[in-house]
Amino acid sequence: MDFQPSAKTLDYRKRLIQFIKENIEPIESNYHKECRRLNPDADWRSWEVPPVVAELKAKAREAGLWNLFLPDAELGAGLSTLEYAPLAEVMGHSLLAPEIFNCNAPDTGNMEVLYHFGSDQQKQQWLTPLLKGEIRSVFCMTEPDVASSDATNMQTSIVADGDEVVISGRKWWSTGLGHPDAKFAIVMGLTDPDAPKHQRHSMVLVPLDTPGVTIERMLPAFGEYDAPYGHGEVLFEQVRVPKENVIGGLGDGFKIAQGRLGPGRIHHCMRALGAAEKALQLFMKRGQDRIAFGKPLLQLGGNLERVADMRIAIDQARLLTFFAAWKIDEVGAMKALAEISAIKVVAPNVLQQVVDEAIQLYGGAGVSHDVPLTQLFAVARALRIADGPDAVHRATIAKVELAKYRER
Amino acid sequence: MDFQPSAKTLDYRKRLIQFIKENIEPIESNYHKECRRLNPDADWRSWEVPPVVAELKAKAREAGLWNLFLPDAELGAGLSTLEYAPLAEVMGHSLLAPEIFNCNAPDTGNMEVLYHFGSDQQKQQWLTPLLKGEIRSVFCMTEPDVASSDATNMQTSIVADGDEVVISGRKWWSTGLGHPDAKFAIVMGLTDPDAPKHQRHSMVLVPLDTPGVTIERMLPAFGEYDAPYGHGEVLFEQVRVPKENVIGGLGDGFKIAQGRLGPGRIHHCMRALGAAEKALQLFMKRGQDRIAFGKPLLQLGGNLERVADMRIAIDQARLLTFFAAWKIDEVGAMKALAEISAIKVVAPNVLQQVVDEAIQLYGGAGVSHDVPLTQLFAVARALRIADGPDAVHRATIAKVELAKYRER
Amino acid sequence: MDFQPSAKTLDYRKRLIQFIKENIEPIESNYHKECRRLNPDADWRSWEVPPVVAELKAKAREAGLWNLFLPDAELGAGLSTLEYAPLAEVMGHSLLAPEIFNCNAPDTGNMEVLYHFGSDQQKQQWLTPLLKGEIRSVFCMTEPDVASSDATNMQTSIVADGDEVVISGRKWWSTGLGHPDAKFAIVMGLTDPDAPKHQRHSMVLVPLDTPGVTIERMLPAFGEYDAPYGHGEVLFEQVRVPKENVIGGLGDGFKIAQGRLGPGRIHHCMRALGAAEKALQLFMKRGQDRIAFGKPLLQLGGNLERVADMRIAIDQARLLTFFAAWKIDEVGAMKALAEISAIKVVAPNVLQQVVDEAIQLYGGAGVSHDVPLTQLFAVARALRIADGPDAVHRATIAKVELAKYRER
Amino acid sequence: MDFQPSAKTLDYRKRLIQFIKENIEPIESNYHKECRRLNPDADWRSWEVPPVVAELKAKAREAGLWNLFLPDAELGAGLSTLEYAPLAEVMGHSLLAPEIFNCNAPDTGNMEVLYHFGSDQQKQQWLTPLLKGEIRSVFCMTEPDVASSDATNMQTSIVADGDEVVISGRKWWSTGLGHPDAKFAIVMGLTDPDAPKHQRHSMVLVPLDTPGVTIERMLPAFGEYDAPYGHGEVLFEQVRVPKENVIGGLGDGFKIAQGRLGPGRIHHCMRALGAAEKALQLFMKRGQDRIAFGKPLLQLGGNLERVADMRIAIDQARLLTFFAAWKIDEVGAMKALAEISAIKVVAPNVLQQVVDEAIQLYGGAGVSHDVPLTQLFAVARALRIADGPDAVHRATIAKVELAKYRER
Repeated sequence: MDFQPSAKTLDYRKRLIQFIKENIEPIESNYHKECRRLNPDADWRSWEVPPVVAELKAKAREAGLWNLFLPDAELGAGLSTLEYAPLAEVMGHSLLAPEIFNCNAPDTGNMEVLYHFGSDQQKQQWLTPLLKGEIRSVFCMTEPDVASSDATNMQTSIVADGDEVVISGRKWWSTGLGHPDAKFAIVMGLTDPDAPKHQRHSMVLVPLDTPGVTIERMLPAFGEYDAPYGHGEVLFEQVRVPKENVIGGLGDGFKIAQGRLGPGRIHHCMRALGAAEKALQLFMKRGQDRIAFGKPLLQLGGNLERVADMRIAIDQARLLTFFAAWKIDEVGAMKALAEISAIKVVAPNVLQQVVDEAIQLYGGAGVSHDVPLTQLFAVARALRIADGPDAVHRATIAKVELAKYRER
Repeated sequence: MDFQPSAKTLDYRKRLIQFIKENIEPIESNYHKECRRLNPDADWRSWEVPPVVAELKAKAREAGLWNLFLPDAELGAGLSTLEYAPLAEVMGHSLLAPEIFNCNAPDTGNMEVLYHFGSDQQKQQWLTPLLKGEIRSVFCMTEPDVASSDATNMQTSIVADGDEVVISGRKWWSTGLGHPDAKFAIVMGLTDPDAPKHQRHSMVLVPLDTPGVTIERMLPAFGEYDAPYGHGEVLFEQVRVPKENVIGGLGDGFKIAQGRLGPGRIHHCMRALGAAEKALQLFMKRGQDRIAFGKPLLQLGGNLERVADMRIAIDQARLLTFFAAWKIDEVGAMKALAEISAIKVVAPNVLQQVVDEAIQLYGGAGVSHDVPLTQLFAVARALRIADGPDAVHRATIAKVELAKYRER
Repeated sequence: MDFQPSAKTLDYRKRLIQFIKENIEPIESNYHKECRRLNPDADWRSWEVPPVVAELKAKAREAGLWNLFLPDAELGAGLSTLEYAPLAEVMGHSLLAPEIFNCNAPDTGNMEVLYHFGSDQQKQQWLTPLLKGEIRSVFCMTEPDVASSDATNMQTSIVADGDEVVISGRKWWSTGLGHPDAKFAIVMGLTDPDAPKHQRHSMVLVPLDTPGVTIERMLPAFGEYDAPYGHGEVLFEQVRVPKENVIGGLGDGFKIAQGRLGPGRIHHCMRALGAAEKALQLFMKRGQDRIAFGKPLLQLGGNLERVADMRIAIDQARLLTFFAAWKIDEVGAMKALAEISAIKVVAPNVLQQVVDEAIQLYGGAGVSHDVPLTQLFAVARALRIADGPDAVHRATIAKVELAKYRER
Repeated sequence: MDFQPSAKTLDYRKRLIQFIKENIEPIESNYHKECRRLNPDADWRSWEVPPVVAELKAKAREAGLWNLFLPDAELGAGLSTLEYAPLAEVMGHSLLAPEIFNCNAPDTGNMEVLYHFGSDQQKQQWLTPLLKGEIRSVFCMTEPDVASSDATNMQTSIVADGDEVVISGRKWWSTGLGHPDAKFAIVMGLTDPDAPKHQRHSMVLVPLDTPGVTIERMLPAFGEYDAPYGHGEVLFEQVRVPKENVIGGLGDGFKIAQGRLGPGRIHHCMRALGAAEKALQLFMKRGQDRIAFGKPLLQLGGNLERVADMRIAIDQARLLTFFAAWKIDEVGAMKALAEISAIKVVAPNVLQQVVDEAIQLYGGAGVSHDVPLTQLFAVARALRIADGPDAVHRATIAKVELAKYRER
């Protein structure tokens, strides 16, 4: 349980910070302005990626700041979950950074799935170009018509039919669906409703140009379309893919999902904490620069108390996330469920709270696009829902706590 | 302190509810979809008002549901602040309704200013068409370069020069600046920095086509541009208007502002509570309709406790707002400062909290535009800043409390 | 819904404030010191009432400040629930005051029960001496062995046997059981477990010297024994009283309880808000008098924001309590269940919060007996449990809210 | 930053748990009942220690569970702050345990002071018997007449006069002053008001039987006198002790205090978290055993959400305390100020919150002495004030945060 960053981590961290400062920060505001012009719902099919992204990705790859999330020493950087955590935090300072370092969701999770569970052919066809950053991918899990917080509600079906499987259903909040480079989705669906609870679902690779796949629209989160990625709603109508596209086997969906979500939640949470540090920096900056009633805002009312509470909240959340990461590394995600759920509740709420305070100090500017606070707020607010809403994670924690007493 | 609605209020209330249900609700979702297409910053000069607005305004006027906010019995409905409060709440159920009944900010506040302080000529030229709903107006107060929470920071100048006054400065968050019918702004600025604190500022009527007036852009609030109204940033460069355009006299700005803000804050807060009731309705609806883990969401975890807490919060805030309204009617806004500040803190925070809970129950839909929750959130969040941020109002309340002890 | 105090209320209020200031405040600290010497559990049978109490009661009665809670114009002051509410608040400024004015729980509730439901004989025997303040009484409801928040759990039985009823069971938290003048208890128990839910219970008058009644101990609440009243645990072993001691008839217990709890909760809540005002006064006083880091404590950190939040919380809670009182007067307690539950949640929590803040400002003195804050804290904390814990009241509010949607 | 407990820690931890379970838990409830009989203020001079304490201390010492807090390998267990932290937590499960293992405040802090700063003679005379558990000691810091949160307010003087120093002043909240074995106090006072801020104060050893030392009374904290230790108010009137009783030299008081408070706060916070675990256990127990409305309380309303939130809060606080402990070990308390302040805010507040929830679930029993919750509450509430109130620690954290920006 040694949370001191390893030498490798420290070296990467330093280089990431420098890369972000020199290459990403200077262009970021302009990048978002360009992307925001792409916003309107109707136009998403013509979204393009600002060319600076490809340039920076090439530069990052060259600098060896690439695929750091992948525990494989050859394909990635060979870092443990705990070793990678501080790097995810640093990337969280910038909304663009994760993409530049090829460490962006949902690609990271999809790459992990393929790395751990993919067949050789699947790896060659899909993992390799993802690792090179040449294509992007999508993960289709949430459905609009049912409470997706309860996985047993899932309606999309994945049914074997000879050498093929047939996918039927509707998914939404599939991040990246609007991206021009998005080539395939990993779709989760119901294969056998009568199987034991954790063997009912399957995951299958579906190229987005397969007949029957219709991307219907992009969804805004608090008004943010997150172009050129987007969060899409997609209809699968009798979509047929070869059986070889099933990941693992039919019925393995739940098992794979669990493995996928462990490190993925660490990444999300650490990025959220990086974003919270960014928001706190903005709070401090505004609080020192802006004068009212003859004093910098920081010196007024309870603002310094807020600083203390935010610092405490962030530091506690970071340590808890390190702890969950360490536990994943030690005993696997399945035995770290309560810890993963704990950070999934804590980190987005900390981010939401810190951003809300920063917005208040910025006044009108805070709710505009002149500072990136509403973007960070949207990230926080959506994250309290995505990958399981707060309520589901609280229930998991309580269940694990209760089990301690049952054992006694 | 009789909070029982008067017969007149009850009658108007019933008719407003019916009008909204029959005429506004059915078209509202489509209206917002149309308006949202107008969003992008660059395009605001071509914003148009969906024709349904003019139709509904005519219908509302015909039905006598018009200018209800104005205490004058001939020009308006002759209702006291307390009598109007429940009507503002009802209008708050819908983001479009206030406009339809010609009770929309900032026109209401501007009409009040002209009604109470305008010269006959000003009334004829500006108040009459506003009361008819033929034009719209703007209020220019907040400035981007200083903490506008502290009025003494204001930099825009309004200086006499012969028969004219000259306005120079920059304002933003001027709501309605993007509206095609917006014809003039009431601008607040500094006339004499050496005068006693409350006699330094002036208000002046500035037609928007006056040379030197440049509307630079529309600002998004949490991604919402609120087309076709918009919140604008505007530059006044040596703008000259005749002295007759000054409201009251030079130096009267602060006095007028205080009068303007009293009833206006009641309106804002009651609309916020109407919106909170709407959000609670959505919470209840989703909580009953959506099933997870074999139960309606409402029956899971602490959701019913949340219902209780939200009901308590809304009911308390409403009574406090009635109290502030009553006090304004009894002793005037200047002697009700603490009460007005109290509701200005409470109501938007209640709305933000209720909306946040409703979003959580709606999951992905909650952060999208499929339900109006993020719009309501933006209203709440912006309102915690507009018309004085929470911190300033808390300071006012504390000051009044402190004074009780000094007197002893 | 006119919350403006009536002329009668204003007159009583003024006289109460003066009486408390002149007669109670000067002796209060010493009174509590004397009472606290009576504390130890073992000694409660020898508790005596400091003689000053009888003197002050006589004086209050002479001044006509007596039985103000009773709606009867002859026996009491003929005030409505709403009219009495502000008087209960004033009495709440002092922990001793309610006793002095013969408006102390549980006597007030017991007197109301006898007034509304007692037979002529019961009134003559028990109500008359209570109204004169010659004896005190007890209400036995809560039981130690079951969750008393759920009335259907109640185990104490009240069974008819010829001309008598037989009471068997154990009760605790029966306030006043240690008082030397306590003469009888109203005991609630189960008569017929098979009757419809609301007709199973009965209330019966039990003189405390009846054979089979054993007072076992006095209970401390946060270390406070509240001598010479005390909160007792009492055992009823085959206790026999004549059937005439049943209030109303067998099976009427629930109906009577409901009527008893309505106004009683208003009294409790208003006293709690009076106590909160007292705690806020102490906060303000300490905050102005005590200097740290060169400034009065009030000027440090977020303390003035706390003042604002406390002022808002108290004012909102008061208005909500007035509203509940008004509704009880208008439509009866049974139709004001949600409103009564709302204040029962709000008022004690507001008191707890305000006292907690005041304690913090007083530092070490705050947790000692040098200021009455821990006493007020104990009142608040116990009140969140007594008369239904927060959770039960939240459930009631949610149930009523839900019913609105079912009706639609 | 390896928070994995060392083998030594794990071994001690296991043995402590077993010792507490076998020897302390069975007698604890009775011990507190006996001690509570000692409560009344007037009687403290006759307080006696229940004989079981000496028996258990002997047993613990024999078992090698003795002086574990002391980093010295010979005199204590040679554990680092981080290694000792989990042991302090375990001791926190029981209010009596720290005494039994000779790890009780303020003796621990006093022993540390003597160990690090005492002269050989001081060590021989005072440290040795303390280490043997033969005597007890007191620390006199807080004063009643000034805001002791601001050390510059301190009024007690320690002035050199020939071969002696003279102590004059009043102290209170001096824990242990009522204990029959208390032999001396370490008194902090002002020596030179004109010296640099951190060289004005001195610490001096004062035998309690020195002429001029008058213990005036014991103070209750939320009604708890904590007999036979007590929290005393003591007057020093021209008290003379030889100069050799000064610890370090005159003017070293502040430096010594800082060193004393670092590890001491870790101990306090870890014990608080142990107490929070205890309270959570009680919550779980009651929540499973008690039935209302047909279900165990845990299954009702938001109670399971509360379990999750409490588990998260405790786990986060523990990790943060480990972090602060680690930092003290690495760089010393002076460079870990912000971290120490952070846990000093967090841990007592977590304990207060968890205890408050547990009380609510226990209902009437919760506020009584039938369960130890109000005792734990008193500990939590007092700890938010002792060793610097929350506000002072928040200010420290903000100051350190601010310094990061000044450096840039």
